[in-house]
Amino acid sequence: MNQTEIENILRAHRDGEIDETTAAERIKNLGYEDIGFARVDHGRADRQGFPEVIFGQGKSSQQIAGIFERLLERRPNVLITRTNRDVYGDIRNIYTDAEWHETARMIRVVRDRTELGAGEITVVTAGTSDIPVAEEAALTAETMGNRVQRVWDVGVAGIHRILAERELLQNSRVVIVVAGMEGALPSVVGGLVAVPVIAVPTSIGYGASFGGIAALLGMLNSCASNVTVVNIDNGFGAGFVASLINRK
Amino acid sequence: MNQTEIENILRAHRDGEIDETTAAERIKNLGYEDIGFARVDHGRADRQGFPEVIFGQGKSSQQIAGIFERLLERRPNVLITRTNRDVYGDIRNIYTDAEWHETARMIRVVRDRTELGAGEITVVTAGTSDIPVAEEAALTAETMGNRVQRVWDVGVAGIHRILAERELLQNSRVVIVVAGMEGALPSVVGGLVAVPVIAVPTSIGYGASFGGIAALLGMLNSCASNVTVVNIDNGFGAGFVASLINRK
Amino acid sequence: MNQTEIENILRAHRDGEIDETTAAERIKNLGYEDIGFARVDHGRADRQGFPEVIFGQGKSSQQIAGIFERLLERRPNVLITRTNRDVYGDIRNIYTDAEWHETARMIRVVRDRTELGAGEITVVTAGTSDIPVAEEAALTAETMGNRVQRVWDVGVAGIHRILAERELLQNSRVVIVVAGMEGALPSVVGGLVAVPVIAVPTSIGYGASFGGIAALLGMLNSCASNVTVVNIDNGFGAGFVASLINRK
Amino acid sequence: MNQTEIENILRAHRDGEIDETTAAERIKNLGYEDIGFARVDHGRADRQGFPEVIFGQGKSSQQIAGIFERLLERRPNVLITRTNRDVYGDIRNIYTDAEWHETARMIRVVRDRTELGAGEITVVTAGTSDIPVAEEAALTAETMGNRVQRVWDVGVAGIHRILAERELLQNSRVVIVVAGMEGALPSVVGGLVAVPVIAVPTSIGYGASFGGIAALLGMLNSCASNVTVVNIDNGFGAGFVASLINRK
Amino acid sequence: MNQTEIENILRAHRDGEIDETTAAERIKNLGYEDIGFARVDHGRADRQGFPEVIFGQGKSSQQIAGIFERLLERRPNVLITRTNRDVYGDIRNIYTDAEWHETARMIRVVRDRTELGAGEITVVTAGTSDIPVAEEAALTAETMGNRVQRVWDVGVAGIHRILAERELLQNSRVVIVVAGMEGALPSVVGGLVAVPVIAVPTSIGYGASFGGIAALLGMLNSCASNVTVVNIDNGFGAGFVASLINRK
Amino acid sequence: MNQTEIENILRAHRDGEIDETTAAERIKNLGYEDIGFARVDHGRADRQGFPEVIFGQGKSSQQIAGIFERLLERRPNVLITRTNRDVYGDIRNIYTDAEWHETARMIRVVRDRTELGAGEITVVTAGTSDIPVAEEAALTAETMGNRVQRVWDVGVAGIHRILAERELLQNSRVVIVVAGMEGALPSVVGGLVAVPVIAVPTSIGYGASFGGIAALLGMLNSCASNVTVVNIDNGFGAGFVASLINRK
Amino acid sequence: MNQTEIENILRAHRDGEIDETTAAERIKNLGYEDIGFARVDHGRADRQGFPEVIFGQGKSSQQIAGIFERLLERRPNVLITRTNRDVYGDIRNIYTDAEWHETARMIRVVRDRTELGAGEITVVTAGTSDIPVAEEAALTAETMGNRVQRVWDVGVAGIHRILAERELLQNSRVVIVVAGMEGALPSVVGGLVAVPVIAVPTSIGYGASFGGIAALLGMLNSCASNVTVVNIDNGFGAGFVASLINRK
Amino acid sequence: MNQTEIENILRAHRDGEIDETTAAERIKNLGYEDIGFARVDHGRADRQGFPEVIFGQGKSSQQIAGIFERLLERRPNVLITRTNRDVYGDIRNIYTDAEWHETARMIRVVRDRTELGAGEITVVTAGTSDIPVAEEAALTAETMGNRVQRVWDVGVAGIHRILAERELLQNSRVVIVVAGMEGALPSVVGGLVAVPVIAVPTSIGYGASFGGIAALLGMLNSCASNVTVVNIDNGFGAGFVASLINRK
Repeated sequence: MNQTEIENILRAHRDGEIDETTAAERIKNLGYEDIGFARVDHGRADRQGFPEVIFGQGKSSQQIAGIFERLLERRPNVLITRTNRDVYGDIRNIYTDAEWHETARMIRVVRDRTELGAGEITVVTAGTSDIPVAEEAALTAETMGNRVQRVWDVGVAGIHRILAERELLQNSRVVIVVAGMEGALPSVVGGLVAVPVIAVPTSIGYGASFGGIAALLGMLNSCASNVTVVNIDNGFGAGFVASLINRK
Repeated sequence: MNQTEIENILRAHRDGEIDETTAAERIKNLGYEDIGFARVDHGRADRQGFPEVIFGQGKSSQQIAGIFERLLERRPNVLITRTNRDVYGDIRNIYTDAEWHETARMIRVVRDRTELGAGEITVVTAGTSDIPVAEEAALTAETMGNRVQRVWDVGVAGIHRILAERELLQNSRVVIVVAGMEGALPSVVGGLVAVPVIAVPTSIGYGASFGGIAALLGMLNSCASNVTVVNIDNGFGAGFVASLINRK
Repeated sequence: MNQTEIENILRAHRDGEIDETTAAERIKNLGYEDIGFARVDHGRADRQGFPEVIFGQGKSSQQIAGIFERLLERRPNVLITRTNRDVYGDIRNIYTDAEWHETARMIRVVRDRTELGAGEITVVTAGTSDIPVAEEAALTAETMGNRVQRVWDVGVAGIHRILAERELLQNSRVVIVVAGMEGALPSVVGGLVAVPVIAVPTSIGYGASFGGIAALLGMLNSCASNVTVVNIDNGFGAGFVASLINRK
Repeated sequence: MNQTEIENILRAHRDGEIDETTAAERIKNLGYEDIGFARVDHGRADRQGFPEVIFGQGKSSQQIAGIFERLLERRPNVLITRTNRDVYGDIRNIYTDAEWHETARMIRVVRDRTELGAGEITVVTAGTSDIPVAEEAALTAETMGNRVQRVWDVGVAGIHRILAERELLQNSRVVIVVAGMEGALPSVVGGLVAVPVIAVPTSIGYGASFGGIAALLGMLNSCASNVTVVNIDNGFGAGFVASLINRK
Repeated sequence: MNQTEIENILRAHRDGEIDETTAAERIKNLGYEDIGFARVDHGRADRQGFPEVIFGQGKSSQQIAGIFERLLERRPNVLITRTNRDVYGDIRNIYTDAEWHETARMIRVVRDRTELGAGEITVVTAGTSDIPVAEEAALTAETMGNRVQRVWDVGVAGIHRILAERELLQNSRVVIVVAGMEGALPSVVGGLVAVPVIAVPTSIGYGASFGGIAALLGMLNSCASNVTVVNIDNGFGAGFVASLINRK
Repeated sequence: MNQTEIENILRAHRDGEIDETTAAERIKNLGYEDIGFARVDHGRADRQGFPEVIFGQGKSSQQIAGIFERLLERRPNVLITRTNRDVYGDIRNIYTDAEWHETARMIRVVRDRTELGAGEITVVTAGTSDIPVAEEAALTAETMGNRVQRVWDVGVAGIHRILAERELLQNSRVVIVVAGMEGALPSVVGGLVAVPVIAVPTSIGYGASFGGIAALLGMLNSCASNVTVVNIDNGFGAGFVASLINRK
Repeated sequence: MNQTEIENILRAHRDGEIDETTAAERIKNLGYEDIGFARVDHGRADRQGFPEVIFGQGKSSQQIAGIFERLLERRPNVLITRTNRDVYGDIRNIYTDAEWHETARMIRVVRDRTELGAGEITVVTAGTSDIPVAEEAALTAETMGNRVQRVWDVGVAGIHRILAERELLQNSRVVIVVAGMEGALPSVVGGLVAVPVIAVPTSIGYGASFGGIAALLGMLNSCASNVTVVNIDNGFGAGFVASLINRK
Repeated sequence: MNQTEIENILRAHRDGEIDETTAAERIKNLGYEDIGFARVDHGRADRQGFPEVIFGQGKSSQQIAGIFERLLERRPNVLITRTNRDVYGDIRNIYTDAEWHETARMIRVVRDRTELGAGEITVVTAGTSDIPVAEEAALTAETMGNRVQRVWDVGVAGIHRILAERELLQNSRVVIVVAGMEGALPSVVGGLVAVPVIAVPTSIGYGASFGGIAALLGMLNSCASNVTVVNIDNGFGAGFVASLINRK
């Protein structure tokens, strides 16, 4: 729990602004808030430096809106991932500053744009079809206060394309590499830079790509030592960890 | 069946050199020879341009020696793959010109060294541990009458190593790429050359490499269009197909 | 980069036909052209002997059209694979000589029909349902300047059907075998011919065929030594490699 | 329970040869006999037409011997599968007519050699290394009163070898096909004959054969309709079912 | 090829009913008939005792109708599996005696109802949802001239249900057991009878049934020795093999 | 069979209320009732303490209604799982006291609400998306006469949420834990309580969750010794076993 | 933490028997004790009703002995699983009442034999080879204060063997079923009883049993609703949970 | 290539200390050095901030020693992973300051102990058996100039053990979590801290842990957003990336 927030509640209570029951409930809610179908985890912001992001997939519009509201009451910036334009319609009716990002299928509100990153995060894709996942990573990192460089469609079958970006890569504090099919690009990028590389396998491919398994295995077995891996299509996770690494 | 061989037998019979039973049996054996535990396939030489190679794994020394003898009666060059030094000891007692190749675990007799290839075959490995499989490929191709170039330990995490060999690769008629772990090298090589690339996944790696599955999947999903794949650790097959492609 | 193309640009600049900025940009674009969502790889034509083919799956109509346009500016023949009739409608409005191939789901423009192949490529299917993948292979090879023979529905459960085509097979420079279910046909064909066999597993089958895995494994484990394998349903890849093998 | 055996016990009791307790216990044991670590299933002979065969793997010598003894008390023919020469040593000390079959790793006692089969069972292997599993099938069928033909090493990469045996195959009542690697032979054989084909995948192969999975999947997906499949390396099961099919 | 059919053609030719070209073509077609997208395998009827059945899945209505017509010209009984009511509409317009079987998704024409079976075939299901696959098996066997008994919904969790049918099972010449989920029923049935049991795994189940894999593995590992297995949902194959076993 | 029910039938027959045929049929039906497509297992209630629940998935509305009617004739409480609102419409027309539970997709009739449990059952979910499966478990347990506590959205990434419910958990007789993704919650709960924990993996997740496999494996490998596992999404099974454990 | 134990320490401190440092350390250790390579979890006894059992596999003799000593200082009964005779030798030198159980590969000390179970636990195996895992379950349950019945070798292929034990099964409070191969026995037992069934898949089998996966999947997909599953070969876990269910 | 090293060589040449050939070769070797079986990648130190570490598995003693020598000529600190005491014997004969680390199976020479990390790296294990992999991570990080905290045996089934270390975790710059079995610990740790968590699955476990797959999948599907994953047992990789994150 955040020390300042507790003090604020205590002061409001002492000054008679809120009664005892309200004060106690608010303190309890600093940890998490039980809204029936979900326990909104306000404490995570303190523990992880960012509010709980809403994973939209498998949740109803009402559930998303309910959680969104609780989070926005306390935090300037909130993200919804894996959602759709309909949910955005509902959200925007209430929060007119909400943005819709078609490619990344994300909704966000950004009210605090303080730069928090020490260096630059570069996001790279092997192909054109990997861009949606890469955009999810890039937007997440930007929302978390980072400068982000985008480098699209530089897969290993045309190796000169990635080599042409060597300088950009070597000036980054962390590189996110998004690739489907054989997932070879993180190994090449990993060998070119002296910073952490976060590899994101995508479900792009066909036949024996098995929905991203081929790329995932390729990345886990990377011969470059500076590569770690997140789940298939998990652009958000990559952007999140990159932000933590890049934090001042 | 080979036309000339049939005519030879017919002539020998007409001239009384061999009796009818012998002649009939020999003709029948031109197709294959039944030696109990195996049907030695002499006809395959005509069909595929090379004698049946003996796959040593899972066969007893006696079985290997029996088949070897039948093949060598008719062909100048014979190969045994996946064998060991003990079998070699037995073979060499009879055929003093038999060679033992430790790294590739092969025995061979080469009595006809005619060059049959139109160009050059290059064999490339990602790492040091891939060399045994690569040697199996290289020796197979040499035994089948080809000039072979060897390029070892040029994996993608140090991309300048393979780029330094670009000219050599681009002058080859076919390239064999042998790699374990993430199996990314064939995609990079495939993008550099305008000839067929035969990818050989190896069982080198650990953890989620699953005995070569990661490399195999990586190669099957290669984003380079000129890559085809053979079985895990199948250096022999790669050398064999490369020889067929390179044939004058 | 292609020597002649560079010289042409340099001459145009010297003669004052284009200014310095234009000349520099064109030279840079000889390698690849960055159009935002894609880096069109013009250099691959020199490296691999054919323009980058557009893999249509997972790309929007606009993206396909954009890449198509860039490629056709420089190359007489362009292919789009895994696409649909709607994309064809858009393309044909601009390029009236574009062709639509329903079975193979391909669009192509062929303006240069020079024959480039040394021999003949034969494409074989095990069943009727494998024809779409086989057509993709056959059309790719034809577009790349080869004569192609088609042999449909000769699966191993009626072995006399493939045996009846033995002569045709043995006169080919390379054979492509397309099969689903158990994927046994490449082994039989491989045993009949002395040339490379490219095996294409298809996702045809049900139950334990697992979308083509059974056929893929069957082909990787082929007991015929002259068989290499491409990804499930990858007719294009097979046609491409066959063309490289057959090149004069 | 067998009617005659019950009557024999009842008569022995009535005639005072055995007392009531003994009679009751023997009747109860006609179903199965509890010897502590195992319930020997004498009733299965009536239900399935053959005594319970002892699966040797994972059982101690003492356990095998104990079950063997109980079975032999009631049945003229008993089989032990997946065993070794040491167990045979122990068995032979007691039962001097016990036979050891090295290749198939089986022990058997055959005291009743009545022919029970209507026709002939043919056992076929794709390669030399498949012979041990095939011998297990052949010996099982012979012990169960059948005439058996053996055809070794006729894999599909030399298709003329199996075609040469067409007549033999077509005169069989049932065919067992034993194959590793891609497991293609059952489909070819299935297309040649009008009788049931029992396919036995073996663990022979390497790399992507995955200990017999490739062959198993190939056989399950056979395009020949008369093929059924048993477990990997399960020669015994194939011989057993073939015997039931062939029973007069 | 069928001796009688050849003689009929020869006689017709000798008697001037058909000219030489027609006669030659007909004889050639006795083996198989090439209709472009398919090679209709008339010879299989002689080899396997039944015409080639049309596997409807993945074929167009036109293709099905084309093959159907060719088969029905020569055979009294023809089956189409995995098809739908629309195809049936097309077929029935031409062949008014064609039947549609909704549950089994089969079309058939039966003009010859000679009984060919020696005994009875019993088809058993574990659950209600397995009935469609079981009906495919039962109808196949009936079309091939067998008497068939149906026993539905006798899964092992209510073991008395299958035990109540013991007598029926024991009087069968062969039993087909169709089951999804854990696939345990074939083992229980196998232990109750002394005849071959053909196990058909179905894709019925959820979660870790993985579309029938759990049932398939259960059946392959059956502890009853008289069980063989066909592909997931392959009711047709089971009915076909059962008919061959039961043939007089 | 239930002793009382048999006596009732016998008495009715003796008193002339029903004739002999009817009586015999009813007695036979006490075991199970054959209604063509299903054998309704009335005896299971005696054996397992609850009527056969109808698994709705893969059954037609008519089939469900038919089985439902038979069960309700003899039992006060009946459940249908994995069904939909349309089936409910049909059922409610006849049984006006039938309830529809949207989240759990269940229909039930509860006419006997006797409490049968000794203690309390707690159902816990890791996330909001796991609630439908958890509701299936909770409703099953309530229908079987248990008091149930629900604790939603207490996944391990906010560990204080589950710790806050420690007392509730420790006062339960059995705990059901429902989780997707990595399936870690059962291990944590298992370590907090001294009672059996039933883990239910859900298909919630994406990428390498593989439809619940990741969660399933996590639970099977739990380092807490008091955890057992049911099938993916099998809320019903978990509720059923929990009821048996909690029975007075 | 246990209330009584804390009070004892406090009293000892107040009475001057131990100094403040010792008292504080002992209280802290009530939770867990850090011995360098392990944190011995004394608190788990209170939470789960039994001391932490030592999983011997992968630990050195010294590590096992170290943990064993710490546990025995506080608890009368301690178990070591998956260990060997050598470790037993070391343990027995210090604790002469330690017992070695060869079949189950367990060491135990039992100083308190109070009966804690309400009813009886029955442990059942499908085959002879499953006995070691079953003994691990049985011994665990006995050590935890339960009466245990053992029923060995009653697999489903001889269904009368398990039916003969129906009464015993129906009088149990919980049944543990241990089976390899197809893992069908739990479904049959589940259908016979009205109590929880804990299924333990074993790695017994060969070929497509894949080290217990076939049995595991069979059990997870059981059509009996009262079955839950533990990890492959996890006899200890089954015995542990059964004890919790059976607790008075 | 490193600017300073090039200047040193140039100066030495200008001053006549080395001749032209030597100078050219040394410059070329700055990139990599070809020693036949390996291309030692000196340039990687500049690109990644650390010399190429030698992966010992699958290399001969001679190969390891050869590479080791080349690396140590240029770098003060060198690591060999996955090696054994015998190799250490050979190495120590030459380099007396080489250290052997039994638990981690590593050899290292550390001549430069400058602290390079900004904060502290904490390495955590779930169990005692995970310590060897964790030690590999810890030693790697220490060799690369970091302060490391070790926290062993704090798995989630005794959740208070990890909670007791909350403060230590929250003061770390990066946390490495090493766990086998269900791999749940990284999710719990991830929820407690606001820094990157690197998860290392280990092959510890049995049955359905499948050599670390269960843990790997658990970690990839972690519900904590700050978790990335490396290959199974890849302690080295985790230590390497943690060092890059922690670098000042």
